[in-house]
Amino acid sequence: MNAFPPPGDKKQLEEGLVFTPKFDADGLVPAMAIDAATKEPLMLAYMNAESLKLTLELGEAVYWSRSRKEIWHKGKTSGQVQKVVEIRTDCDQDALVVYVEQLGGGCCHTGRNDCFYRKVAGRSEEGGALLSFREAHKVGNG
Amino acid sequence: MNAFPPPGDKKQLEEGLVFTPKFDADGLVPAMAIDAATKEPLMLAYMNAESLKLTLELGEAVYWSRSRKEIWHKGKTSGQVQKVVEIRTDCDQDALVVYVEQLGGGCCHTGRNDCFYRKVAGRSEEGGALLSFREAHKVGNG
Repeated sequence: MNAFPPPGDKKQLEEGLVFTPKFDADGLVPAMAIDAATKEPLMLAYMNAESLKLTLELGEAVYWSRSRKEIWHKGKTSGQVQKVVEIRTDCDQDALVVYVEQLGGGCCHTGRNDCFYRKVAGRSEEGGALLSFREAHKVGNG
Repeated sequence: MNAFPPPGDKKQLEEGLVFTPKFDADGLVPAMAIDAATKEPLMLAYMNAESLKLTLELGEAVYWSRSRKEIWHKGKTSGQVQKVVEIRTDCDQDALVVYVEQLGGGCCHTGRNDCFYRKVAGRSEEGGALLSFREAHKVGNG
């Protein structure tokens, strides 16, 4: 049984108060985890209906691992648990923002606090771009 | 010619300083736009290589519209232009965070400042969830 009703018409989708997440062809919806304390983006992952339901039940972020093709209770083995503070959805309910309390010293498997540790720093000759490591917890010229 | 080199090995991907975005099977990468001033998430959309290149060239967010299947220079007609302040990428370079200065009074086609104007407010009897309209610019109990 699917816990989430199928998306309704445009008005229900945009102005309704029933959560009808719109999963894509692979049954997934992107979820951006943001640190509820610092408001810094932590990671972007995906949830299917089952992992979203588990997230709601447990109060901890549960994703769908696209590489391992399995339910991924974040931090269950690493200790990098994400306690859910607030979940937002957007106008057409096909994207989620999950504000979390990040436990375990960070979310990234590289050992960093968050996965977005590099920023575009300049253009390459081919029209692409070069990156630089950003200073933690600063937006802009940091 | 693709402005972005193909993704390298794991070390280059995670620790390198060449921007090698990893586009999915549809040629897209998700991009979360965040207000650089308030740090509030604005919208989640997708970029293909061309729109990402245009974003870098113009200094304004350009997306790929999945519904219209065309390049979408955000705000070009509505005035809701997003001036790019900073672009971050994650460890495996398959997601972007775009900090922007949001012009035109907001980003959402519903007339709201941002698209994430509802949050999960409680569980439904079926195991799903109910939403509530959130107060703008507050995380938590707002």
